[in-house]
Amino acid sequence: MALTIGIDVGGTKIAAGVVDTDGVIHRMVRRDTPSHDARGVENVIAELVRDLADTHPVQAVGIGAAGFVAADLSTVLFAPNLAWRNEPLGAVVEAACGLPTVVENDANAAAWGEARFGAGRTGQTVVVLTVGTGIGGGIVVDGVLHRGKFGVAAEFGHLNVEPHGRRCGCGNHGCWERYASGRALVREAQDLANVSPGFAADLLARAGGRADAITGLHVTAAAQDGDPAALECFRVIGSWLGHGMADIAAFFDPDLFIIGGGVCEAGELLRGPAAAAFENRLTGRAHRPVAEVRLAELGANVGIVGAADLARERVLGLAHNGSRVSGGVQCPIG
Amino acid sequence: MALTIGIDVGGTKIAAGVVDTDGVIHRMVRRDTPSHDARGVENVIAELVRDLADTHPVQAVGIGAAGFVAADLSTVLFAPNLAWRNEPLGAVVEAACGLPTVVENDANAAAWGEARFGAGRTGQTVVVLTVGTGIGGGIVVDGVLHRGKFGVAAEFGHLNVEPHGRRCGCGNHGCWERYASGRALVREAQDLANVSPGFAADLLARAGGRADAITGLHVTAAAQDGDPAALECFRVIGSWLGHGMADIAAFFDPDLFIIGGGVCEAGELLRGPAAAAFENRLTGRAHRPVAEVRLAELGANVGIVGAADLARERVLGLAHNGSRVSGGVQCPIG
Amino acid sequence: MALTIGIDVGGTKIAAGVVDTDGVIHRMVRRDTPSHDARGVENVIAELVRDLADTHPVQAVGIGAAGFVAADLSTVLFAPNLAWRNEPLGAVVEAACGLPTVVENDANAAAWGEARFGAGRTGQTVVVLTVGTGIGGGIVVDGVLHRGKFGVAAEFGHLNVEPHGRRCGCGNHGCWERYASGRALVREAQDLANVSPGFAADLLARAGGRADAITGLHVTAAAQDGDPAALECFRVIGSWLGHGMADIAAFFDPDLFIIGGGVCEAGELLRGPAAAAFENRLTGRAHRPVAEVRLAELGANVGIVGAADLARERVLGLAHNGSRVSGGVQCPIG
Amino acid sequence: MALTIGIDVGGTKIAAGVVDTDGVIHRMVRRDTPSHDARGVENVIAELVRDLADTHPVQAVGIGAAGFVAADLSTVLFAPNLAWRNEPLGAVVEAACGLPTVVENDANAAAWGEARFGAGRTGQTVVVLTVGTGIGGGIVVDGVLHRGKFGVAAEFGHLNVEPHGRRCGCGNHGCWERYASGRALVREAQDLANVSPGFAADLLARAGGRADAITGLHVTAAAQDGDPAALECFRVIGSWLGHGMADIAAFFDPDLFIIGGGVCEAGELLRGPAAAAFENRLTGRAHRPVAEVRLAELGANVGIVGAADLARERVLGLAHNGSRVSGGVQCPIG
Repeated sequence: MALTIGIDVGGTKIAAGVVDTDGVIHRMVRRDTPSHDARGVENVIAELVRDLADTHPVQAVGIGAAGFVAADLSTVLFAPNLAWRNEPLGAVVEAACGLPTVVENDANAAAWGEARFGAGRTGQTVVVLTVGTGIGGGIVVDGVLHRGKFGVAAEFGHLNVEPHGRRCGCGNHGCWERYASGRALVREAQDLANVSPGFAADLLARAGGRADAITGLHVTAAAQDGDPAALECFRVIGSWLGHGMADIAAFFDPDLFIIGGGVCEAGELLRGPAAAAFENRLTGRAHRPVAEVRLAELGANVGIVGAADLARERVLGLAHNGSRVSGGVQCPIG
Repeated sequence: MALTIGIDVGGTKIAAGVVDTDGVIHRMVRRDTPSHDARGVENVIAELVRDLADTHPVQAVGIGAAGFVAADLSTVLFAPNLAWRNEPLGAVVEAACGLPTVVENDANAAAWGEARFGAGRTGQTVVVLTVGTGIGGGIVVDGVLHRGKFGVAAEFGHLNVEPHGRRCGCGNHGCWERYASGRALVREAQDLANVSPGFAADLLARAGGRADAITGLHVTAAAQDGDPAALECFRVIGSWLGHGMADIAAFFDPDLFIIGGGVCEAGELLRGPAAAAFENRLTGRAHRPVAEVRLAELGANVGIVGAADLARERVLGLAHNGSRVSGGVQCPIG
Repeated sequence: MALTIGIDVGGTKIAAGVVDTDGVIHRMVRRDTPSHDARGVENVIAELVRDLADTHPVQAVGIGAAGFVAADLSTVLFAPNLAWRNEPLGAVVEAACGLPTVVENDANAAAWGEARFGAGRTGQTVVVLTVGTGIGGGIVVDGVLHRGKFGVAAEFGHLNVEPHGRRCGCGNHGCWERYASGRALVREAQDLANVSPGFAADLLARAGGRADAITGLHVTAAAQDGDPAALECFRVIGSWLGHGMADIAAFFDPDLFIIGGGVCEAGELLRGPAAAAFENRLTGRAHRPVAEVRLAELGANVGIVGAADLARERVLGLAHNGSRVSGGVQCPIG
Repeated sequence: MALTIGIDVGGTKIAAGVVDTDGVIHRMVRRDTPSHDARGVENVIAELVRDLADTHPVQAVGIGAAGFVAADLSTVLFAPNLAWRNEPLGAVVEAACGLPTVVENDANAAAWGEARFGAGRTGQTVVVLTVGTGIGGGIVVDGVLHRGKFGVAAEFGHLNVEPHGRRCGCGNHGCWERYASGRALVREAQDLANVSPGFAADLLARAGGRADAITGLHVTAAAQDGDPAALECFRVIGSWLGHGMADIAAFFDPDLFIIGGGVCEAGELLRGPAAAAFENRLTGRAHRPVAEVRLAELGANVGIVGAADLARERVLGLAHNGSRVSGGVQCPIG
């Protein structure tokens, strides 16, 4: 059984794990992310790798990092939060640890994990939407990750859904993630509480009476308790989610959408409105099969599993066996 | 040199040609499309095939038809204009002519032709936009046509660009082709002539003074003569075209867009504003390479060339040689 | 009984009538409008006045003209269709005919007629919407016509209802009359016929199968026969009409809206959806009385009646008696 | 010199003053607003009146209250924040104090004060926009306050500027005050800080690094210091303000807009973009005079001045003298 290391480099934590060919994590370690220090992050990664390699016979390393990764699967061209610019991350780690190393965009790595070992393992043309603060994800066609020509495919969050809509940090207005994400959910709830405090009384009560203190957890909990205002917020967000999915289907014709990320903690409260809006807006819906919409099955460690599997496949040329990941990894809390 | 037949089944004409491995058409024949008679269309196709097979040693037949084609590459699931429902078109023609036959969506076939022998032959992740009455096209990744799970990928025309926008025949509002197509160009010009007859005086003069008589040819000719109103129409259409291309790039990260179809007769008048708007709206544009935007090089017969090549590849397993199609096939007149 | 002359200067016809204090027209004469010739129009007006004055003892003349009329109620500052720029129309006619003459914007004159003798005679704060090719109208508060400081109030057609919407001849995008007018009705129907010819089969049949040949009369007749596509067109137009009325109510708080103009030929088919959308969008609707929405009662000659009455009031200082206009003047055919 | 009392009933404070015919306040008293207790508010008003009447020979009382006031100028039909429903406020105070009392909507009273004694005293058709948390204001034509038929005119904040826009507490989407108000300014700044923290670094610094802690005062101060992000926020808000003003001008043709309320503390930073957008969107702008756009001159006590003057005019039939209010009352701090 070939073991590989998967590493998920986040803004606050770097997590690494030893993963087998079934996608099972055998050991995990975690460290804080050194802030704004590219070299420091590389040192922490190397230390984590050496630590895991001490206890397990690992054969390769896969790193998922937020940023644009070059076609060499080693160089990070640009990482918005990590001060990397044309950084040869893979080569650096490989030199420091003596293990073959590949780098992939973190959203791609997570999508790969979910597509291989989670809700996507039976799909053929699979689109994974990771709905957290924004919308990320990945595209897998016939068992191949679609990276795009420049390695920056699947920037779902910046599909445009309102040409003159809400301002986005990317410089455009009306990006999808400004309407369908954890942040959009909170905004919707805060707006509702500001303009209709009576209707949003339950949400306000959970947030100590302050609209600007309402969080995603408040909205999810209230919706699960049946609060009409919170349900309305999920309906709005889910409807926008389905709206964009209909666009993706017109373009790409997948058989499977997977909704993951922190907001999928709400489960059917999110999936239901999204699937309904998707079917309702799907072009040619009377004359075509409708793609399935599933919730992600793997949880917060999916990025580690995906990165490890990409390392195995790309470095070792070994196929995974496709069987179910063991252990009840849960959908992460937003 | 393996010769195959390519057939383009249009709403008014059925055109067929003998095509070689360089994409050169050796002989072409053409017949009117029997209206609303599925059986009649099949008979005409078979007659055309037999006619061509009499004079050339052809080895396979490829048919491009407007409609949803099943994964067997033989059955037309639904053809909006041709009265076919679950029609085993490929099998029928094969039985009638004794030649192996494949069927493909006509827009896919044309995109394939352009990607193989035209402007796309050097691209890797290629998106062909066929801008005519609506927007069709196809997607080619690493030399493989992306058909989608259900064979209905690349329905570009129904990407949504305005959530509460113009009514579309597909049942939605705000579809891309309602804003960026030959029909949209005409509508823009007629609107302009209705509300600003002074500004649109040149367009009106070309149409005998009647706004509703303005055609795409009028707008293209006026724009080529420098008329500000016609140029404004192309600017609006091109801008919407680029807007949608930015979405496709966010999703799919191609290295090459090809703009073909009747409206590309206008050449740079269309490509220029489209490319400008595309770059302007591309998410992450400061940190990524920008895909190239080219005009199609093959003309009205590209569908025949593409269908013939798909037949060669899929039936005979023979690779094309990738070299340039001979003969100066021009971009068709809208 | 004081008789006055009212004149309606239209783009194709100039109509003049002798009107009494009950708003009854005693005699009418009509001439073609000399095209693009300011002097010629004035001559025709003077001839019509002399003709009428030969047979009836008239005391003043009121002229309704499409354009901006100065506060002196004599000078036309700008007339889009009549080549008048700072034209002392009133003084010219007065000099030619020897009768005191006032000039008013034609939409204001018509609104005044309807407010005095038609559906508005019981209202206090009355807004008359004249829905024809565009939207014009007038505002009457406590029996006083609101002209605005510069005489250009009640340009209803250019209220904005979609900030990035349809292009308008005024230079803006999204003007109300681009969504709620006779021209918008035709556009809606033609669009529907283009994108959904099956659904719009009845409309197409009435127009000889050509979408661009559908007229307002076709849509009205089809709607009166219950055609769902035509009814949908009126629902869309009426809904936009009500949308704008809700804005006017938020601003102005009238007790009465009157819908007149050619499109009101459709009667309840237009008024119903407009009133429903108005009530639905009226801000504070649960806590305020809702203004009434009525159809105009006077017909195509309302402009003559209104201009004559303004002449009486402004020149002679005589009050009308407020009683009903005799004769069953009908709502004009679009 | 006739003295009257003006009272401004706010959500947190009730302020009362003795005002002379020049709009000068001779003495002011203030009390907290008893929360959610209609009777308690009336008692406080009566006590304030008696207190002022003890020291000054006042002849009438004018009360400005947030709510719908009936045509009797005494009954409050509905007050969203004060638990009054069909409350005979004027009669109650009159009975308690023995002074003739009139009631008016507080925004109308403030607009009247500004129109009479402030920036509006030379205007003829004057629209006062009070831009605070929302947008209120009033309309004065030829020296008469336009109340509308049901007393609820000038609900400016709920003019619609985006048909599918931001949710509003009134039940609609896209109301003007959701785009152009103090609250909208804060939202714009917080959004900007969330999506572009680098660009909004100055704003974030003023708010302790937390986007949700940015206030209107932060934005105003930063804009006055030339911060591009804060200036951008004012540009956006001002632009929406001008957009709506163009609608009002199309409808009503005023010669003067006055921008008051807490946000006008920013002065030219707000007025400039508003006036520019107004002129840019004004329909027929080439052929008509353009209304002037001024900042309010009176400050936070304008409601007291206006209410007192309405009492004088309506109860006593005495005209004000139109001369300038003495004392440098400043524009209030938002």
